[in-house]
Amino acid sequence: MRILILGGDGYLGWPTAMRFSQGGHEVHIVDNYLRRRAHEEVGTDTLVPILGSLPERADVWKEVSGKEIGVTEGDLVEWDLTVELFRDFKPESIVHYGEMPSAPYSMRDRDHAVFTQENNVVNTLNVLWAMREFAPDSHLVKLGTMGEYGTPNIDIEEGYLDIEHNGRKETILFPKLPGSLYHLSKVHDSNNIHFACRMWGIRATDLNQGVVYGIETDETKLDERLATRFDYDDVFGTALNRFCLQAIIGHPLTVYGKGGQTRGYLNILDTLQCVELAVLNPADRGEFRVFNQFTEQFSVMELAEIVQRAGKEHGLDVRIEPIENPRIELEEHYYNAKHTKLLDLGLQPHFLSETLVESMFGIIESHKDRVITDAILPRDRWGAGVEAPSS
Amino acid sequence: MRILILGGDGYLGWPTAMRFSQGGHEVHIVDNYLRRRAHEEVGTDTLVPILGSLPERADVWKEVSGKEIGVTEGDLVEWDLTVELFRDFKPESIVHYGEMPSAPYSMRDRDHAVFTQENNVVNTLNVLWAMREFAPDSHLVKLGTMGEYGTPNIDIEEGYLDIEHNGRKETILFPKLPGSLYHLSKVHDSNNIHFACRMWGIRATDLNQGVVYGIETDETKLDERLATRFDYDDVFGTALNRFCLQAIIGHPLTVYGKGGQTRGYLNILDTLQCVELAVLNPADRGEFRVFNQFTEQFSVMELAEIVQRAGKEHGLDVRIEPIENPRIELEEHYYNAKHTKLLDLGLQPHFLSETLVESMFGIIESHKDRVITDAILPRDRWGAGVEAPSS
Repeated sequence: MRILILGGDGYLGWPTAMRFSQGGHEVHIVDNYLRRRAHEEVGTDTLVPILGSLPERADVWKEVSGKEIGVTEGDLVEWDLTVELFRDFKPESIVHYGEMPSAPYSMRDRDHAVFTQENNVVNTLNVLWAMREFAPDSHLVKLGTMGEYGTPNIDIEEGYLDIEHNGRKETILFPKLPGSLYHLSKVHDSNNIHFACRMWGIRATDLNQGVVYGIETDETKLDERLATRFDYDDVFGTALNRFCLQAIIGHPLTVYGKGGQTRGYLNILDTLQCVELAVLNPADRGEFRVFNQFTEQFSVMELAEIVQRAGKEHGLDVRIEPIENPRIELEEHYYNAKHTKLLDLGLQPHFLSETLVESMFGIIESHKDRVITDAILPRDRWGAGVEAPSS
Repeated sequence: MRILILGGDGYLGWPTAMRFSQGGHEVHIVDNYLRRRAHEEVGTDTLVPILGSLPERADVWKEVSGKEIGVTEGDLVEWDLTVELFRDFKPESIVHYGEMPSAPYSMRDRDHAVFTQENNVVNTLNVLWAMREFAPDSHLVKLGTMGEYGTPNIDIEEGYLDIEHNGRKETILFPKLPGSLYHLSKVHDSNNIHFACRMWGIRATDLNQGVVYGIETDETKLDERLATRFDYDDVFGTALNRFCLQAIIGHPLTVYGKGGQTRGYLNILDTLQCVELAVLNPADRGEFRVFNQFTEQFSVMELAEIVQRAGKEHGLDVRIEPIENPRIELEEHYYNAKHTKLLDLGLQPHFLSETLVESMFGIIESHKDRVITDAILPRDRWGAGVEAPSS
């Protein structure tokens, strides 16, 4: 299958590209290095070093695997580039990771907020118009986030909710209550994609992904030059990755507030499986299909405790230290999100274990001279003197 | 009260500015003439002539009323301009009409779609950040549209819906199912504004307005140079205005498809009342308040029949001629939208009557030499070879 991967230089985009290439698919990736530039801007960097450019990564992949990955260095906000890509490559599937991916980045100030929404909404609109014009039978696999739903007081279904109101029935898109302007950009995307399915008969799968952890995939392990990025910082890092790093460098694990914030999590290996399952089992014409892509729920405090226990096994003395929450979010809340559709398609989950955490310790240890310690604690606050809501 | 009116050159913005000025408020208006330029671009024009520039309109207003309206000719997409406005004028209320307002325009092609969403989302984000930074206690009165809701199979409530799911309860934003990329831009706005209320304690009222008809207000009647625009064309015109014009120039009333499309409607006089009620009764800190702003529901066919009857009284022979629907929308559907909150605040509706239609006939007649007849029938289609959905 011809698979176009948008954001192919990223934490997940690059391993996804190698996985599909390894599987015998024709893969082309696009990236404008936004993620790398944003890291430079905020003074952070991936812990695991990655190669200089996307063409160089593809060259190493060819050397190691004997397989080719096509590369375009460019910005999907530019319509001419988008048109050229779709016309030349004629994708059958489009895997769309190509967005500004950070909540804290979007909340820094007005410029970052506007950039985030403009970048994400416009490039996704470009993709939808290009599909309509040049690849009407292709299938969009879009990375959304579980964060679009927020933390409602009801069970989170997979995309849709059947309701009854005043004796009449309707099926609605599951209500969204996102917690940052980045998450809102994904909600805007989901609404635009749903529209394109309804109006133009586009095929789309929205993958509302949980928080991803892990460093290695079958392909990154083939050669250290094929490694993917690993972010632990306050802007691009995620909770478990950060906790593992803090354990190794002897910092306390900084839980935001009460730590009752519960989210869905998954191993990077399962991200690859899920995306593959979505691509190989495309949505129907006009279908806006939604999967909740995670394997387990944890509260932030539970994650910290898992890392603490794994640290003990590893001979580390790990402390947990709650700090003031820079975000505005419920710190204690109901959370029960459904996630059966990918299991039904054949997902075999890799659950979080202390063994996995310890294997992450090992990799982090080997790069700990690269840690930028003043980019770990939160530097930006969400609110404007507003109290956090009570649960 | 210091009232900032965004989009103050428009069909509703200009009469709103005069109304508040007449009421003794301090009014400042902003507009970048987007609407005028867009009309030029698509080869259409207002039927009722309007003065050359916004400062000239304000000058005439001062001559007639003795009252001043401040004017800024500029684009709210520019952050510097937005900052300057908020710093200098220190608004207590912001009435936000300042968006690209046409569904057909947004559906023309990729460029118009992206422009519409970028323009509307970015300028509203700028307003929200400016409120946060420079006017945290001010109140945003944002013009949304009933079109954000689409035509669900359940009663449309005013902004929120109480639901029960698996034995648990939640109040959600009423689900949206918009029918164009323009309407989607308003949904994105609503979601962003809701977020700003939740996170930053912004006060906001989202006015989901129906389709407005009518030409005159108390203030426009004071002097013909104070007239507001009147659009009947395929891109910016609305159904009732177009039907009245078609009746006068002897064209058949072109109903799209079956004509069962039902929407909320209101007189321009009631728009002014509603906006005034919202401004004078502000939302609380952190409150995202939603009103459904219309007074009556009609199907398109019912409107055509009202105009036909009024035409008969007026001595006109008016035919109704269904044409192929350029939009993708249900042509027969359930529609029952609540609209009591503005009535509770004191709205005194002006219901649609054949007398009102006949008074519109008179004004249209006096300008009928200005009609651009080849800009009445739809020139763009929504879909991409997709069938209209069945009800």
